[in-house]
Amino acid sequence: MGEQGYRVEHDTMGEVRVPVDALWRAQTQRAVENFPISGRGLERSQIRAMGLLKAAAARVNERLGVLPSDVAKAIAAAADEVAEGEHDAHFPVDVFQTGSGTSSNMNANEVIATLATASLGRDVHPNDHVNASQSSNDTFPTTLRVAATEAVVKDVVPALEHLATTLEGRSAEWADLVKSGRTHLMDAVPITLGQEAGAWAAQVRYGVERLTSSVPRLAELPIGGTAVGSGLNAPEGFGAAVSAELADVTGLPLTEARDHFEAQATQDGVVEISGQLRTTAVALFKIANDLRWLGSGPRTGLGELALPDLQPGSSIMPGKVNPVISEATMMVVAQIIGNDATVAFAGSQGNFQLNVMLPVIARNVLESARLLAAVARLLADKVLVGTEPQVERLRELAESSPSIVTPLNRYLGYEEAASIAKQSLKERKTIREVVLERGHVPGKVTEEQLDAALDVLHMARGGR
Amino acid sequence: MGEQGYRVEHDTMGEVRVPVDALWRAQTQRAVENFPISGRGLERSQIRAMGLLKAAAARVNERLGVLPSDVAKAIAAAADEVAEGEHDAHFPVDVFQTGSGTSSNMNANEVIATLATASLGRDVHPNDHVNASQSSNDTFPTTLRVAATEAVVKDVVPALEHLATTLEGRSAEWADLVKSGRTHLMDAVPITLGQEAGAWAAQVRYGVERLTSSVPRLAELPIGGTAVGSGLNAPEGFGAAVSAELADVTGLPLTEARDHFEAQATQDGVVEISGQLRTTAVALFKIANDLRWLGSGPRTGLGELALPDLQPGSSIMPGKVNPVISEATMMVVAQIIGNDATVAFAGSQGNFQLNVMLPVIARNVLESARLLAAVARLLADKVLVGTEPQVERLRELAESSPSIVTPLNRYLGYEEAASIAKQSLKERKTIREVVLERGHVPGKVTEEQLDAALDVLHMARGGR
Amino acid sequence: MGEQGYRVEHDTMGEVRVPVDALWRAQTQRAVENFPISGRGLERSQIRAMGLLKAAAARVNERLGVLPSDVAKAIAAAADEVAEGEHDAHFPVDVFQTGSGTSSNMNANEVIATLATASLGRDVHPNDHVNASQSSNDTFPTTLRVAATEAVVKDVVPALEHLATTLEGRSAEWADLVKSGRTHLMDAVPITLGQEAGAWAAQVRYGVERLTSSVPRLAELPIGGTAVGSGLNAPEGFGAAVSAELADVTGLPLTEARDHFEAQATQDGVVEISGQLRTTAVALFKIANDLRWLGSGPRTGLGELALPDLQPGSSIMPGKVNPVISEATMMVVAQIIGNDATVAFAGSQGNFQLNVMLPVIARNVLESARLLAAVARLLADKVLVGTEPQVERLRELAESSPSIVTPLNRYLGYEEAASIAKQSLKERKTIREVVLERGHVPGKVTEEQLDAALDVLHMARGGR
Amino acid sequence: MGEQGYRVEHDTMGEVRVPVDALWRAQTQRAVENFPISGRGLERSQIRAMGLLKAAAARVNERLGVLPSDVAKAIAAAADEVAEGEHDAHFPVDVFQTGSGTSSNMNANEVIATLATASLGRDVHPNDHVNASQSSNDTFPTTLRVAATEAVVKDVVPALEHLATTLEGRSAEWADLVKSGRTHLMDAVPITLGQEAGAWAAQVRYGVERLTSSVPRLAELPIGGTAVGSGLNAPEGFGAAVSAELADVTGLPLTEARDHFEAQATQDGVVEISGQLRTTAVALFKIANDLRWLGSGPRTGLGELALPDLQPGSSIMPGKVNPVISEATMMVVAQIIGNDATVAFAGSQGNFQLNVMLPVIARNVLESARLLAAVARLLADKVLVGTEPQVERLRELAESSPSIVTPLNRYLGYEEAASIAKQSLKERKTIREVVLERGHVPGKVTEEQLDAALDVLHMARGGR
Repeated sequence: MGEQGYRVEHDTMGEVRVPVDALWRAQTQRAVENFPISGRGLERSQIRAMGLLKAAAARVNERLGVLPSDVAKAIAAAADEVAEGEHDAHFPVDVFQTGSGTSSNMNANEVIATLATASLGRDVHPNDHVNASQSSNDTFPTTLRVAATEAVVKDVVPALEHLATTLEGRSAEWADLVKSGRTHLMDAVPITLGQEAGAWAAQVRYGVERLTSSVPRLAELPIGGTAVGSGLNAPEGFGAAVSAELADVTGLPLTEARDHFEAQATQDGVVEISGQLRTTAVALFKIANDLRWLGSGPRTGLGELALPDLQPGSSIMPGKVNPVISEATMMVVAQIIGNDATVAFAGSQGNFQLNVMLPVIARNVLESARLLAAVARLLADKVLVGTEPQVERLRELAESSPSIVTPLNRYLGYEEAASIAKQSLKERKTIREVVLERGHVPGKVTEEQLDAALDVLHMARGGR
Repeated sequence: MGEQGYRVEHDTMGEVRVPVDALWRAQTQRAVENFPISGRGLERSQIRAMGLLKAAAARVNERLGVLPSDVAKAIAAAADEVAEGEHDAHFPVDVFQTGSGTSSNMNANEVIATLATASLGRDVHPNDHVNASQSSNDTFPTTLRVAATEAVVKDVVPALEHLATTLEGRSAEWADLVKSGRTHLMDAVPITLGQEAGAWAAQVRYGVERLTSSVPRLAELPIGGTAVGSGLNAPEGFGAAVSAELADVTGLPLTEARDHFEAQATQDGVVEISGQLRTTAVALFKIANDLRWLGSGPRTGLGELALPDLQPGSSIMPGKVNPVISEATMMVVAQIIGNDATVAFAGSQGNFQLNVMLPVIARNVLESARLLAAVARLLADKVLVGTEPQVERLRELAESSPSIVTPLNRYLGYEEAASIAKQSLKERKTIREVVLERGHVPGKVTEEQLDAALDVLHMARGGR
Repeated sequence: MGEQGYRVEHDTMGEVRVPVDALWRAQTQRAVENFPISGRGLERSQIRAMGLLKAAAARVNERLGVLPSDVAKAIAAAADEVAEGEHDAHFPVDVFQTGSGTSSNMNANEVIATLATASLGRDVHPNDHVNASQSSNDTFPTTLRVAATEAVVKDVVPALEHLATTLEGRSAEWADLVKSGRTHLMDAVPITLGQEAGAWAAQVRYGVERLTSSVPRLAELPIGGTAVGSGLNAPEGFGAAVSAELADVTGLPLTEARDHFEAQATQDGVVEISGQLRTTAVALFKIANDLRWLGSGPRTGLGELALPDLQPGSSIMPGKVNPVISEATMMVVAQIIGNDATVAFAGSQGNFQLNVMLPVIARNVLESARLLAAVARLLADKVLVGTEPQVERLRELAESSPSIVTPLNRYLGYEEAASIAKQSLKERKTIREVVLERGHVPGKVTEEQLDAALDVLHMARGGR
Repeated sequence: MGEQGYRVEHDTMGEVRVPVDALWRAQTQRAVENFPISGRGLERSQIRAMGLLKAAAARVNERLGVLPSDVAKAIAAAADEVAEGEHDAHFPVDVFQTGSGTSSNMNANEVIATLATASLGRDVHPNDHVNASQSSNDTFPTTLRVAATEAVVKDVVPALEHLATTLEGRSAEWADLVKSGRTHLMDAVPITLGQEAGAWAAQVRYGVERLTSSVPRLAELPIGGTAVGSGLNAPEGFGAAVSAELADVTGLPLTEARDHFEAQATQDGVVEISGQLRTTAVALFKIANDLRWLGSGPRTGLGELALPDLQPGSSIMPGKVNPVISEATMMVVAQIIGNDATVAFAGSQGNFQLNVMLPVIARNVLESARLLAAVARLLADKVLVGTEPQVERLRELAESSPSIVTPLNRYLGYEEAASIAKQSLKERKTIREVVLERGHVPGKVTEEQLDAALDVLHMARGGR
């Protein structure tokens, strides 16, 4: 009976005009009007988790006798559609909203109630039925944790493993390519390109370890705690059953929260995973930065690697090609560091029985996971696969580094070796030339020992 | 001649398939394929600035004889449409891209070239014409600075002024409402609610000052520096003329960069404004937090203010209403703090002649400005306008605070006053009762002095 | 033979004047002069680790035939004195120095060489003997990791366990003290104080878990990698042997780095532990903040807890007592959040074979650990042990909260319950009064059901 | 009458044992025992400001009749000694303490009272006399602001100006040294080393501007507000008079706070200056990083600059010299970024009439200022003064960059120029060779035009 283009809905505060085709109802509409802030809603991954949770809750409510079977089934079917993304356009609430995410929970309740009402042919109530045995205070953080766990386990970790495997492959191929080490950006003793790429691979593998080691605390679900953690208005065993249902449906290691009061009062487990994503991002920064530096030039840089040409690099300098994936990765890392600062700040601001910074925590941790997975794959597929070592230049630089005097410490002592290195640099002579000129052979070191000592590939393997 | 749904475009690297209806061309398409990262492009405000800049550049190129008049006019007309938002759907490049923003600059060049070619009836080239006298390296940071300046001057500052004015209005209305001060969350000497609201207003006014004091450094434009700041390939005076044109069109205090090398090598001026937005956000956090605390209850909290009811607060606890705008504001502040961390990190990572973290800097500072302006307005319009002081409770609490013994220090000394306060608390007596009981009247303090000393409104006004 | 008060030392760069009584030599002195920056040196815990490492290295060098037994023993004895703190005054190098910590490594080498020379009666060389088989590039990060592991395992974790145990004790004592829950700072359904304290305890226990789960990656030692990770100039097995020696001496789970190139090129494992310290700190912020809020008042705050009086709170307001340990804790958390930002930034800035932000990483992570342990103990011993619940007020507030209508949802529906709550607030009636007045008993709910539903302790236990 | 080594003091809470030689009394002692946290007290600069403030307050209290002349004079004399640093050993309170800094304010009150009592020969009371007309809540933030203003105006700004002047001097000397520009780390069109150094100088000059523009808000003093901003217990005009006295004594632009409630409830003005220090630090990071990169090598790096040799660089690689001041600077920047995160977090956490995160804010902002000033001077004096451009290499690299094709865009178009650049790289020919080979001379470009177009110094000056 609404006006042209609108219909009238009501809630406990009164009437609200809702667009006539909207699946949502009064509380969603109030939130749309209250929060014209960022123009963006929840992450898709969290809407998906909402659908999964509402379906699981309906099935458990049916099993425990809270809801009649037909109502439960209608809710579960509608919720599955939400999970699949069929109704994303009906989730218009801004991510910056009430800090409990109540508006988004009610958005889900209302959309599902509307769909279930239509399919069932009789009224399904957003609160009394769809939200039965639940509260925003346990559902919203549950969806955050389901979505974050899914993102880490199914998106970030596989992407990192793909990157690590790619790096390990290149490391093996490059095992004999000797090059100069660099410390403080200055010439150091030789290594192989394989060792360098192996260190990058190790960084990524550690990233997988650290994320994985934190998943158990992330994957604990608040569901069952209802308003304040006590489980008021939910039947005995509800949280455990819904958690098991969700674990089953998703294949994720989801469990019921060990302490429901902790699980709603704080989001420490999410702050932790944000920190681990941040640390892993920091690792990728180093890798991406090394790659672009080793590929710098072609004439005025280090020029040790040729990275693949992906696109013209300059709108004014013809022929220029830039390390664009490295740069995109480094920007993603900058974003993740900022997102993590947001999450830590927000995580500290809980009071009493609820942290009411939930939506901003969700937005940032879910975005960080998504971005990290994306650039890990791009680094592997668009950069490392096509990178070509500049073999001659690698060896030439390795042999020119004055630091190759280092193995002579044992024959000549650190101070004489330092003096040789300095003369070599000043007079642009090789280390060998200076050693011979100073008459150390064969007095202090034999010719064979000198050869062995100055063999750069031998040196890269520890000189042993 | 492309396949079904695609056409073939080429650039200096070869051929690319582009959707047949796309206004963009080869380089944009490469970027779309290279950067499947966040799913989000530039902020609308920066696309707008791109249109404004390309139009201004075309007009100056015409004036300086770089472009024929008809070509320049066709470009300017197309660019104006871009500024107006008519072609936003043709800006598909992810914000996480090449660090110079070259892909987005080329996106603008290509879209405008396509439009101008169509209107002019002969080829307009993205690089040779639309980008004439320009480089991504000066245009992209110029659009960032135009967009950020516009956001600060036309959005954030007016929103803050609106909030400050609203607060000053409430402060004046509440000038005589005495209440207890609180320090360390503990009972302190009285103040008025007007003084408290006045401090919030002052915070916001300072925010305007600090943003305004940083605008001159933000509003310096790199345009004219081309690739590395030297202005190679741009005519003499190009940067100054385009800056003046942009200032004229927008009404903003835009100027040519004092040092074009600095303006491209770094984005310090943007890092600064990000810091000032951050500091202003920190101020809003305090205000929003105070408001929700003063409104806490209704029965178990401080209960000094009744904030307006905006929406039902709980999906399970009937009748609950929560301070949702305060929470949304606090989450926005958390986001701005994180965004600022991203900007500072990215700002530190420039090398040599260019900072290549530009798009992530742009995204974060422009979002921060947008969010800050939004919540400043909401705090004013949805919270402060409708807030109702709980007058009786304010006074009752003021009079119950043991700190009202403070003015007696001058008569009785700090130590005796402390002893009185403690007895008052322990025995649940008023300060007056204990003073009388201890026989200080009229020996140390007359009845009149006692009355004056214990007058809470007098005390709030400094007791003078 | 130096001038008055000084002696002349030399190194590979020439002569340096050193204070006549200094145990250090030329390179330390150069560093003292080069870095007049913060006025502070390394953390004591890292100097200790340097002593431990140099002693362990000497013993292994002896065993592997690198050093003669008497020289090795003299070095080990001197290094043990350094570990014990006997020569801290001879570590004058600023923490802001060369990014590899070479100056501090050489400081240790020089001091130990001087001591060993004196005890042995013949020259012990800082580089050729004390630093034998080592480089700053493996020793400095090894000492960082030994010190950080020791701090976490022997200081932070026990302090957290002490706090958790204390909280669990109070939680058990307070198991039956019913109180109002608060969400969004607003009245919510009841809980017990025991549940609230139990959630704090759970947060702290999780902190132990998350730190412990990250220790394995922190406790991997770079020693054995020498200059660039290849182990050049160190005998086969040196790193494993020194790591085992250190594990043995300290009782810590120290192991050799799995990838020596990774272990020097990055400090990801330290960034990770910094993040975990940060997350644990965030948990303490919530606890400390809740405590001070529950203790706020005595008259104008929440007044549910009486925190122990530790010191006079105001220099002007007599008798005022403030939650000073909570505040100190919250400031420590602010510091740890900042320290962690420093560590993450520094961690991202490694290049090629070495991260040269090591000293600043060390300073911040070691300080964070130290501060966190200190406040965890203070919260337990100076706050929680003496905290007294205000039992009557707790119950009174619990019963006054309109949210106790929530269990009636099942009898009356969410909307009628909301209407009852609103009337109760507006007319200052109890929930029971309104329910009776509306005639719901016995039609919709029996008297017994109403009694059970409105029993706040029952409600706190989930109403089941 | 105390026991051996101790005397007994009392305060409003009872008796305390104090070391017999301590100038401090009971409240300081309680704080020493309550806060065994970091082991560090306030920054020296803040103790100095405490002395200055207490002296100024005593003189104004005398003038306004609050204190007898002899008492005021004794206090002022003692306070001056504190300002001069004569009693720093008697400020043992940890910086992590009560959030208002009351313990440190009482520490100052007690030390000064003890000294004044001794000199005057009769009792001077810490609260009633030394603290007369004051509260911790206005004095502590006043000393923070005095100290921070002094640090910025007298330490940081002069150090930055010294660095800027040094950079401008080198820029002028290097005006004709042509070199390759680098964007995205890749070869770009030429610039001069003078232009590059000029951009660094501009960054530093902007740093001075941004700090200076924020000083007015930093330099507003809370003094006069006493407990909550109302000025209770202080005479009319006290704040203005003390502020003027302090301005006079220090020569700093100190003023009375415009809104005393704001000045105590928040520390936004300090958060702002922290942000400006952070932005300036970010600028120094870029400069220090560029310097070490340009100096990288000597054989395997960019090798464009020879930075001064300050100390041996490696304990294992003989003859190695590293860019240690750059690294120390970059670590300082990492610290300042973290310190600023702490300050912003702490700044957001004020409640009602007081921010109780004051000591941690003070510690961080004062340290940041001190560190920034130190490295600015070191960069100037230890790096830039002695840096030697490698003139031949600079030109050689400039001429080898394929980007020098850019000026030919106007003759040949962007696409043909790109093709030439690619051929030049691929076949290791010069741009000139390829242009000639392709027969563009004299058809599209004359020999003279080609010479002019390929003149790298001309190009660096914009090609005009």
